[in-house]
Amino acid sequence: MKVGFVGLGIMGGPMAKNLMQAGHELVLHNRTKGKADELTAEGGAEVAGSPREAAEGSAVVVTMLPGPPEVERVVAGEDGILEGIEEGSLILDMSTSSPTLAHELAEQASERGVGMLDAPVSGGDVGAIGGTLSIMVGGAEEDFERAKPLFDAMGATVTHVGPAGAGQLVKAANQIVVALVIEAVSEALVLGAKGRVAPEKVLDVLSGGLAGNKVMEVKREKFLSHEFEPGGKVEYHRKDLGIALAAGREYGAALPVTALVCEMFGALIAKGRGDWDHSALVTLLEEWAGREV
Amino acid sequence: MKVGFVGLGIMGGPMAKNLMQAGHELVLHNRTKGKADELTAEGGAEVAGSPREAAEGSAVVVTMLPGPPEVERVVAGEDGILEGIEEGSLILDMSTSSPTLAHELAEQASERGVGMLDAPVSGGDVGAIGGTLSIMVGGAEEDFERAKPLFDAMGATVTHVGPAGAGQLVKAANQIVVALVIEAVSEALVLGAKGRVAPEKVLDVLSGGLAGNKVMEVKREKFLSHEFEPGGKVEYHRKDLGIALAAGREYGAALPVTALVCEMFGALIAKGRGDWDHSALVTLLEEWAGREV
Repeated sequence: MKVGFVGLGIMGGPMAKNLMQAGHELVLHNRTKGKADELTAEGGAEVAGSPREAAEGSAVVVTMLPGPPEVERVVAGEDGILEGIEEGSLILDMSTSSPTLAHELAEQASERGVGMLDAPVSGGDVGAIGGTLSIMVGGAEEDFERAKPLFDAMGATVTHVGPAGAGQLVKAANQIVVALVIEAVSEALVLGAKGRVAPEKVLDVLSGGLAGNKVMEVKREKFLSHEFEPGGKVEYHRKDLGIALAAGREYGAALPVTALVCEMFGALIAKGRGDWDHSALVTLLEEWAGREV
Repeated sequence: MKVGFVGLGIMGGPMAKNLMQAGHELVLHNRTKGKADELTAEGGAEVAGSPREAAEGSAVVVTMLPGPPEVERVVAGEDGILEGIEEGSLILDMSTSSPTLAHELAEQASERGVGMLDAPVSGGDVGAIGGTLSIMVGGAEEDFERAKPLFDAMGATVTHVGPAGAGQLVKAANQIVVALVIEAVSEALVLGAKGRVAPEKVLDVLSGGLAGNKVMEVKREKFLSHEFEPGGKVEYHRKDLGIALAAGREYGAALPVTALVCEMFGALIAKGRGDWDHSALVTLLEEWAGREV
């Protein structure tokens, strides 16, 4: 199948490669052209000069972009996908973006006879490279069925969660839980440390019961060593919580702790830790408790 | 071994029974005398008229009480354990109580040549009945070794986490994580519901990744059915968070989200939901989002 692909960053690059390896003909576009050239050299894909060009003649166009402003520009802006795409084609936006924007763009696409799915992922660069991403998909059932073989080439768990916007909403829910669990574990560790209980003991005992969670397991070494190589970066997670809070305001859901933790991520960014792993949230609490970081 | 046991509530009753079944001679005391009589009828234990009497002649005295004020009164008050206990004996406070009080009482006990361990539990009434509790123990290593066979009769996972007070501190850390994870899942579900995504989908997708946690697994049916039979009660969990916050103030650890969630539990109690399961935290957010509960 001829597939346009826009956005060849840390995530998009390996995702495009997996589509090529599954036998699809790719037409690549990236804002900085070098990335597309690298992939083309390896696999023989074409390079397009704009999102519009990447869409022309493609049955499906995939986007993997930093956030809502880029998604809106690339899909609906000048020289954007909607200017080049043919009726009956499909757009898969796999960026983490806004549920309401996803809904709006799906309507605009629909007016031109084009299907659009919002299909954000979790699993990070490791999942993108290995083709083991979790993909949560919002949109029409028939479009989901058409896109399924492409999703299967990029991810291990692909779930259709509801209509347009629902994929982004579930991704927002995911980012809320991850952030708040990091905060939960951080408060527990700081209290323990101030009372001079070894953090290993806290993590060991809590793992066995109702307090058990995946963050404590995956981030254990970072919490213990205080080396915060990302993983998921503070700055991206703050962006994701911003999307969740905007969706909450739009839909009328108050999210008090999400708002607080979003501000705490903001404080970390102000301290120059935006590119640290999100588990570095614990360092803010440690400073509040008088520990030098 | 002759074991005094003070506090025969939902937790203490079955814990005392497990000690009796392990072959120990129990001397039981409860503020309302009926409870001790019931257990005596079954197993042939003695009944004591006061904590002091329960301690007289016992090698070990176990307490399982509602909270810090009761622990202080029963151990160090008039007709309390320290008035009756013999030198060389051991006190095991298995209540969820204050780390600083645990430390103070251990010092008072030590002045009389008596060992004292703080050994709070998790696992609820199910764990108490089945003898499968998790027990987190603070105090001297040699006292821990002496008490270990008794703990093993009541629990499945017994961990020595540090000096006097450390057991209570780890329990406080546990209660922080459980409460904040309930809040995390609740915010995710409310955002999802307002965006009309089925809560089952949110829980299913989030379970597979970094957002995965035990609360989502154990409380799944309560979140879906909105039947909040306890389980862990809102009022007890607020008490536990109050202990955590007091310890934080004492040790100099700021716990911003614990403070917020503690107030939210307080709001639930004001609404008459103190005896609902703690996962009913979600109902408060639902009301804030305009849903009738």
